[in-house]
Amino acid sequence: MIDDATQKGEQIRRDMFGAEFTERQLAEVNRFTAPMQNVVSRYCFGETWSREGLARRERSMVTLGALCAMGRPHELRVHVKGALANGVTPLEIREILLHTMVYAGVPLGVNAFVNAAESLAEEGIDLDAI
Amino acid sequence: MIDDATQKGEQIRRDMFGAEFTERQLAEVNRFTAPMQNVVSRYCFGETWSREGLARRERSMVTLGALCAMGRPHELRVHVKGALANGVTPLEIREILLHTMVYAGVPLGVNAFVNAAESLAEEGIDLDAI
Amino acid sequence: MIDDATQKGEQIRRDMFGAEFTERQLAEVNRFTAPMQNVVSRYCFGETWSREGLARRERSMVTLGALCAMGRPHELRVHVKGALANGVTPLEIREILLHTMVYAGVPLGVNAFVNAAESLAEEGIDLDAI
Amino acid sequence: MIDDATQKGEQIRRDMFGAEFTERQLAEVNRFTAPMQNVVSRYCFGETWSREGLARRERSMVTLGALCAMGRPHELRVHVKGALANGVTPLEIREILLHTMVYAGVPLGVNAFVNAAESLAEEGIDLDAI
Amino acid sequence: MIDDATQKGEQIRRDMFGAEFTERQLAEVNRFTAPMQNVVSRYCFGETWSREGLARRERSMVTLGALCAMGRPHELRVHVKGALANGVTPLEIREILLHTMVYAGVPLGVNAFVNAAESLAEEGIDLDAI
Amino acid sequence: MIDDATQKGEQIRRDMFGAEFTERQLAEVNRFTAPMQNVVSRYCFGETWSREGLARRERSMVTLGALCAMGRPHELRVHVKGALANGVTPLEIREILLHTMVYAGVPLGVNAFVNAAESLAEEGIDLDAI
Repeated sequence: MIDDATQKGEQIRRDMFGAEFTERQLAEVNRFTAPMQNVVSRYCFGETWSREGLARRERSMVTLGALCAMGRPHELRVHVKGALANGVTPLEIREILLHTMVYAGVPLGVNAFVNAAESLAEEGIDLDAI
Repeated sequence: MIDDATQKGEQIRRDMFGAEFTERQLAEVNRFTAPMQNVVSRYCFGETWSREGLARRERSMVTLGALCAMGRPHELRVHVKGALANGVTPLEIREILLHTMVYAGVPLGVNAFVNAAESLAEEGIDLDAI
Repeated sequence: MIDDATQKGEQIRRDMFGAEFTERQLAEVNRFTAPMQNVVSRYCFGETWSREGLARRERSMVTLGALCAMGRPHELRVHVKGALANGVTPLEIREILLHTMVYAGVPLGVNAFVNAAESLAEEGIDLDAI
Repeated sequence: MIDDATQKGEQIRRDMFGAEFTERQLAEVNRFTAPMQNVVSRYCFGETWSREGLARRERSMVTLGALCAMGRPHELRVHVKGALANGVTPLEIREILLHTMVYAGVPLGVNAFVNAAESLAEEGIDLDAI
Repeated sequence: MIDDATQKGEQIRRDMFGAEFTERQLAEVNRFTAPMQNVVSRYCFGETWSREGLARRERSMVTLGALCAMGRPHELRVHVKGALANGVTPLEIREILLHTMVYAGVPLGVNAFVNAAESLAEEGIDLDAI
Repeated sequence: MIDDATQKGEQIRRDMFGAEFTERQLAEVNRFTAPMQNVVSRYCFGETWSREGLARRERSMVTLGALCAMGRPHELRVHVKGALANGVTPLEIREILLHTMVYAGVPLGVNAFVNAAESLAEEGIDLDAI
């Protein structure tokens, strides 16, 4: 039996990253990784992303800015897809990264662009038609 | 004679941080700090903040997320005021920081809250009435 | 009414940082900082520090290593006091910081030593008699 | 002829990471990497890990916390194996990473778990039987 | 039509990283990455690397120190080649990284050495003959 | 009795930061901070700064780039003075920081400029006459 916040969080993960991707992540859990996955589902998504006061689209924008500044390429790729699901357009993602690059510096900015471009291409988006 | 981008950037700084604060920063410039202040006015504000494709309100949201994640307390305090000028409410600032805290961890999150709270109080905002 | 994890977390904060210090922190809460303080009490202390599988003494050691590596001077000072309460000796704190300095580099190591020394002195510890 | 601290450090590397892995690293040395490998053997292991005042098991705990917080996946994988050699159990490694995740944030925490899980699996540990 | 600073910046990129490598990077540009590549050519190379007051050889030294400290392996590899083009010798690169390792810590130092060694080997440099 | 490397390191500290400043730092040592100060004198200055292959002037340039990128304001202030002692001019310091700002981002760049300007002013340098 899982608590409400965890359940709510898992649903948001499915909404943002797709049911298949999320189910696979949750199914791969073992006794070592289970409490970590629970922090992600419950604290990160169930208790924070689910809050009112900021639209999911805006939460995606803030998340992309933070991940670019922190230099986390893997999470950025995943959250580019989540941002699309939350209504952020490829052009807005470009502007968010270009904007954050001012604060995080050129190497982290370039790195974020390379990863975001690959992530968008995986979603079938033509980067010359944005 | 200053170029267009620099002029546009200085105007955005005045809009966001107040004419007095900005004029003082620009007046304090010397031969050592002048090219740094020019990067701020021209590249940061004149060429990036001035771009289309993202509202200033959204740029403030992204900036607060990035500065919280990077642990820059001084800039965060200044950009809390800029965010208010760009239409972000104190409640939204709270949500942006609480959201970024998930990604940046508890110490950087707490630090951002402490600095943002002081910055909002300096603006005469009653933090129990938000 | 506060939930069990929050209550448990507030008790651990009192145990580690003293009742007076903790009550003051909790009393200063306002509508802006309340959800942040709740993350600290509930997620950080109530749900994580309270877990089995690692002694509090060991959790303090890990925390000091992480805070030194992250360059968070304020939290390090507070957790030096928490570490003493959890049974870590001043000599062990010295060894933890000297050890982490290898990984985090000289400037972060020196910074941690300066802050930890001041925090220990505030507790009345004679740093030449450790 | 190598000095005592270097010799002592090389022995600790063999104890923690295995003779084969360590000999290979030391054999691969060239004129470019030699002084770097000497800093590792002498300063890091021979002069710091060899110190009294903290058990090797505790030094491994502090190291895992610092490496998770610094986001160094390669070193974390190697030190997960060193931690096992120093008597830290897989369950304790889980708790150390879950604990550090509070301070370092969700992306660095998840990243550490992914790398530690792969490192433990390489050692033949069944992650559902810990 | 591209402005003067961009043109000057593209030329410096060709000088430092080779015409082929640079042309390929610029040719791969799309509507998503174009403004990022423009920041690199114009702001980074055209307006900063092109400045007087510091020799290119010295700018390469400072850049390697910064990239090692920031833990950016990809950029470090590229700038090792740029440093050679600007007259920094392999022995000086070794000293720069060994020096920065004191400040950035052992894991970032080792990481920089591994990447720099591979980058130098790709340039056909015998690391035992430096 | 102190070993040769420590003695050599203490001398370099005196050369770069002044005899008075250095003697005070060494005199303030206690049982808690002694091994940290020894790492600074021996490993940092006695074994690394003392190496051949890079001029002290160049080591200062690399150090300023690394400290700006790492956001260590206190050490940057001290090393601005050391850089002057090693023959780096105020104009070159300006260029090093402006250059590193490209890589480290605007907030760390501005922070480095503010601290370096104050440090130069403390040395009696007129920042409008550089």
